[in-house]
Amino acid sequence: MISEISIINRIKSHFPNYIGDDAAHIDLSSDFQYIVTKDLLVENTHFRTKYVSAKSLACKALHSNLSDLAATGAKPEFILLGLSFPKFQKKYVSEFITYFSQYCKSEKVYVIGGDTTASKEHIFVSITAIGKSKINYIKTRDKAQENNAVCLIGSIGKSHLGLYTFEKQIKGLTNFKERFLFPKAKVKEGIWLSNQQSVTSMIDISDGLFVDLKHISDASNVKIEINLDALPLTSSFVKACKFLKLDHINTALAGGEDYGLLFTVQCQDYERIAEKFFQEFEYRMWCIGTIKNGEGIEFMKNGKKIIPLVKPFYHFGEKL
Amino acid sequence: MISEISIINRIKSHFPNYIGDDAAHIDLSSDFQYIVTKDLLVENTHFRTKYVSAKSLACKALHSNLSDLAATGAKPEFILLGLSFPKFQKKYVSEFITYFSQYCKSEKVYVIGGDTTASKEHIFVSITAIGKSKINYIKTRDKAQENNAVCLIGSIGKSHLGLYTFEKQIKGLTNFKERFLFPKAKVKEGIWLSNQQSVTSMIDISDGLFVDLKHISDASNVKIEINLDALPLTSSFVKACKFLKLDHINTALAGGEDYGLLFTVQCQDYERIAEKFFQEFEYRMWCIGTIKNGEGIEFMKNGKKIIPLVKPFYHFGEKL
Repeated sequence: MISEISIINRIKSHFPNYIGDDAAHIDLSSDFQYIVTKDLLVENTHFRTKYVSAKSLACKALHSNLSDLAATGAKPEFILLGLSFPKFQKKYVSEFITYFSQYCKSEKVYVIGGDTTASKEHIFVSITAIGKSKINYIKTRDKAQENNAVCLIGSIGKSHLGLYTFEKQIKGLTNFKERFLFPKAKVKEGIWLSNQQSVTSMIDISDGLFVDLKHISDASNVKIEINLDALPLTSSFVKACKFLKLDHINTALAGGEDYGLLFTVQCQDYERIAEKFFQEFEYRMWCIGTIKNGEGIEFMKNGKKIIPLVKPFYHFGEKL
Repeated sequence: MISEISIINRIKSHFPNYIGDDAAHIDLSSDFQYIVTKDLLVENTHFRTKYVSAKSLACKALHSNLSDLAATGAKPEFILLGLSFPKFQKKYVSEFITYFSQYCKSEKVYVIGGDTTASKEHIFVSITAIGKSKINYIKTRDKAQENNAVCLIGSIGKSHLGLYTFEKQIKGLTNFKERFLFPKAKVKEGIWLSNQQSVTSMIDISDGLFVDLKHISDASNVKIEINLDALPLTSSFVKACKFLKLDHINTALAGGEDYGLLFTVQCQDYERIAEKFFQEFEYRMWCIGTIKNGEGIEFMKNGKKIIPLVKPFYHFGEKL
């Protein structure tokens, strides 16, 4: 097995300043930087056309990239669209372009270039998104500090339930299916959070909460203590997990593609930030844990340390 | 059939300022711009691993992108590397990363980010290359003017012969195979040419001379008259074409992936530029035609207009 981490480490060994975050930074002026992010969506690895419509793929392709920008606090500006597809997918791809253009317009980002080419069998979407940010306001995953509050916005696990119901051909649960098909990157929230000095680190929750917590823990060299009782799990989510015979904690920790934001806040400022956030966006941010000295992720339930089974999901059987 | 042009036109209809060139421009300062280019390399559309080694793929992936930058005159600075591959290609991809890093270092470009993901069967390489250029020095394909000399540097058709011999499993002709396997983008030449005010338009010859002439003709709204007798075809090339029973004119016009540069020069300055170029790079640039009023490409041979059969090559049977 060759993991994504090991590949990135290989590249890092050659380019020590390689950005470990999902977005890279390049200079624009003494005050601004461009943030560049690149995400691949591969048919039958990330989506299947039988339940992901061209409209949904357009939404997912754009918002997964915007989410990487949101995690830095950058304002999205430009998109380069790479498309590789087999001839027989002409209609699907044609629709994809129409919807992708519409999504770009509604997010006020401009498609400035790209590449298109044939493939034998599968659709492959490669997007480069470019955003702009004030240098001092850019957030990364490597600055979490001891005693910081660990916070998140957005739902966790719901997108995964949508994917699961599609894969298992289960009818209903359309709310979760919609979450999977039409994610919305937290762009405005990311910009707002990046303007808060007491927000020390940030990442988007695309790989699943557990993996993204690990990204912060590894990059910042800190331990993260998570209070499982504080996870924002709705009763409809818990009920759906029960119905599907899935452990709701595992689903919340391991399910990906919700595109919320995970961030750390200096604890003395947490209350103020949480209140301001609610005033601004009319929904809550959640404190789910604390940064500690050490390494790794520790979980608490009912005040006691526990080791939950975090089992990654392999729907497509082809994880790296 | 859905052509690359028709896809690009669809996107253009949504984003009228979409850059038709292979590279997009974004502001850096009042003097500089970043040039961003994106190229996809798809297994069994652009290469087969049975004859394209990991080292060769690394070279081709980097240089096809650097060539897009060279066409604008930009100095390459950063790379984002997107890789999607099946588990069973672990060794090949691991080698690819080692060589890719080496090629980047020798071209003094820095890998700053990217994405890796699994695919079912085939390798996809998606590269975003970012270069920097003084705004007033950036060349595009849409500024060719009547009476300009049409010039090129680099060989034409040779890379195609290499590909052809691989596909037909013909032994020998290693010189052509090397051209196909290890192209070298004309980065320094591109920068030098972009500094010449009398160079009016430029493009790299990646799709084949005929297609790239058409790109200049369409974008600049001019007719291009090509003197087929002036094409820089070496005797070894003509001999190899004969041996392979390929028409050498067609091969020179339709064969792609040589990564030379095609550009137009104000005619009164042509002699001076050609001489300076030779002094600088110790090889010749070639004048192969003239820009005329009108549209399309016209070919002359022995002083007479002819219509050569330009037959595109479909080795992989999957052109869009």
